[in-house]
Amino acid sequence: MREVAIVGAGMTRFGELWQLSLRDMFVEAASGALQDARADHVDSIYVGCMSGGQFVGQEHLGPLMADHLGMTGVAAIHVESACASGGIALRQAFMEVASGMSDLVLATGIEKMNDGADVTNVLATAADQELEVYYGVTFPGLYAMIARAHMQEYGTTEEDMAWVSVKNHRHGAKNDKAQFRREVTVEDVMSSSMVSEPLRLLHCSPVSDGAAAVLLCPLDMAKQYTDRPVKIVASGLATGSMALADRADPAFIDSVQVSGERAYKMAGLGPRDIQVAEVHDCFSIAEICCIEALGFVDRGKGGPAAREGFTALGGCIPVNTSGGLKSKGHPVGATGVAQAIEIFRQLRGEGGECQVENSRIGLAQNMGGSGASSVVHIFEGV
Amino acid sequence: MREVAIVGAGMTRFGELWQLSLRDMFVEAASGALQDARADHVDSIYVGCMSGGQFVGQEHLGPLMADHLGMTGVAAIHVESACASGGIALRQAFMEVASGMSDLVLATGIEKMNDGADVTNVLATAADQELEVYYGVTFPGLYAMIARAHMQEYGTTEEDMAWVSVKNHRHGAKNDKAQFRREVTVEDVMSSSMVSEPLRLLHCSPVSDGAAAVLLCPLDMAKQYTDRPVKIVASGLATGSMALADRADPAFIDSVQVSGERAYKMAGLGPRDIQVAEVHDCFSIAEICCIEALGFVDRGKGGPAAREGFTALGGCIPVNTSGGLKSKGHPVGATGVAQAIEIFRQLRGEGGECQVENSRIGLAQNMGGSGASSVVHIFEGV
Repeated sequence: MREVAIVGAGMTRFGELWQLSLRDMFVEAASGALQDARADHVDSIYVGCMSGGQFVGQEHLGPLMADHLGMTGVAAIHVESACASGGIALRQAFMEVASGMSDLVLATGIEKMNDGADVTNVLATAADQELEVYYGVTFPGLYAMIARAHMQEYGTTEEDMAWVSVKNHRHGAKNDKAQFRREVTVEDVMSSSMVSEPLRLLHCSPVSDGAAAVLLCPLDMAKQYTDRPVKIVASGLATGSMALADRADPAFIDSVQVSGERAYKMAGLGPRDIQVAEVHDCFSIAEICCIEALGFVDRGKGGPAAREGFTALGGCIPVNTSGGLKSKGHPVGATGVAQAIEIFRQLRGEGGECQVENSRIGLAQNMGGSGASSVVHIFEGV
Repeated sequence: MREVAIVGAGMTRFGELWQLSLRDMFVEAASGALQDARADHVDSIYVGCMSGGQFVGQEHLGPLMADHLGMTGVAAIHVESACASGGIALRQAFMEVASGMSDLVLATGIEKMNDGADVTNVLATAADQELEVYYGVTFPGLYAMIARAHMQEYGTTEEDMAWVSVKNHRHGAKNDKAQFRREVTVEDVMSSSMVSEPLRLLHCSPVSDGAAAVLLCPLDMAKQYTDRPVKIVASGLATGSMALADRADPAFIDSVQVSGERAYKMAGLGPRDIQVAEVHDCFSIAEICCIEALGFVDRGKGGPAAREGFTALGGCIPVNTSGGLKSKGHPVGATGVAQAIEIFRQLRGEGGECQVENSRIGLAQNMGGSGASSVVHIFEGV
């Protein structure tokens, strides 16, 4: 396999972008990535999107987006793994370059959630229709059950979870692409309205529009495009049981552990080598489960990590310096690519007020549904 | 890049499969492919599907299908390029094996169209929502415009188009997986009800359910799984203008030509080397356009090819020996993989009554929308 690097990145602001259509957002992010790398062509485009069909009545996103970028003719396809669609786009682009099939590949993620669709019901189509959704459950309910199991098994508290939101809003307040650029307090979280007990509004990531794109090429061509490429040293993907009820331990997300182990093995690294990470905090409990499954903390010990500053900026391993899904926003298909952009910026020393000093190795973990899929990438500054 | 082979295949019957759900069909096809290759595990699964979300309210098909196949944990994702989704699944599986990332990869395609959804409107989401669908056009209308342009430019007749259906039904009548196992006459086609002038009912492929799967591995491992592997010698993908109105010549499908040229170049072969082909006859005019764009006949000369027997069994280059989309059926996401299965069978000498004698090189071409995407694979018996 050829070595692969990211050489450029672009993204829209995340938020309620009523003035931008799906294709507008794509063009803004993709042309930003091309401009960043001073590239005027690509061989191939991956579009990560959960459901253009259900959200805005548009499938066949590969050719549509290539067309609107002014690149009609190039290879372009749409990939989907619910909220992990962006991470999957990155993985497929990585493999296409690694295989030798193509040199310049755009990995993009997009989602237009604010456009009239019934968002909660559309998102629920990422759960098991026959075993879960038929009975009325939606994602806040599924993650509430994960939270309850974690609280019962390990003594995690609502306040522990609230600290995840406090930390991520603190980071996100410094990110000019973030949907919510304001800090929140534990009291704010604990007094916000109940969504699905024990999860309150400020435990939940928002409904967002947005797009993100990164440009990949073989490492040995990277210097043509940037002085500071970032190498993708590993990609790990795993699935888990689709239905939460099928899992031996609902408080632990197997797919995150397995995808992490696959990536660590490929990179020849372990959790202690990671200096900065973006993990999938669609709900505050999700970040707690993910840092455990990735081995950043021991199983059951994720609860206090944010409260104690372990995962905060300046802590042992800063998690979600971008603000995470919670504060930056969560246009589901775009999230995985936006995570990679944050790590790309960190490893280039472009993290701004949230820069993790001297970081050379970073990780991004992106998850679908209640954890039925998870994809992990490890990056190294060169 | 490593050389890649297909070592096993499985598929459901195509048709109105009211008794089978999306996941049931997947399991039947995928376990058929595994059984065919005597394989008990895979590293990765690609699920080609146009719209599980819109047809049956189910996204996140990668983990769902891995789970129901009894392979929870493996890498598994969903890929989409409208009616070319199956061909895309094959291409991604090919690249994953070629890259060295994985050894055993399942490429699958599925679609459940008969389940209460408004099929014509769901399919229309593969066209451009803002420039086409908003104005009320659906796919029969788009292909009718392509047919009118071809008739005007080259003198192609309704009877020329009817002969495509006659030929494909003649082939499909011998395929025990086909939706329509009966022959039709030119008179049958010409007197069938008008759908969108000049396209009549028997110029159109049907609404179908079905699933198909092939198992890929490195060529040098293939003999562990079968005595008769079939090598994938090339994969070409191209996009074209999304909206028909944006094309210089609506009677010619650029993406098919470009994807074909990319595949021919990769294989070091040309159209005259192809001995058997499956092409995308979603409407009879589509087969005529595709055989021109692939270089089987000169531009504008596709009309008489079926009538004169050029593309019939026993002709110069038999096209759609499986019955094609017209007679075999067109569960949109499954079609591209089913095409590969027909070529796999042909090159192994398992074509039954439709066997093309001494065929060693075959081609499959799968198209999305009105030709905004096209993917071509070339295969060689070994």
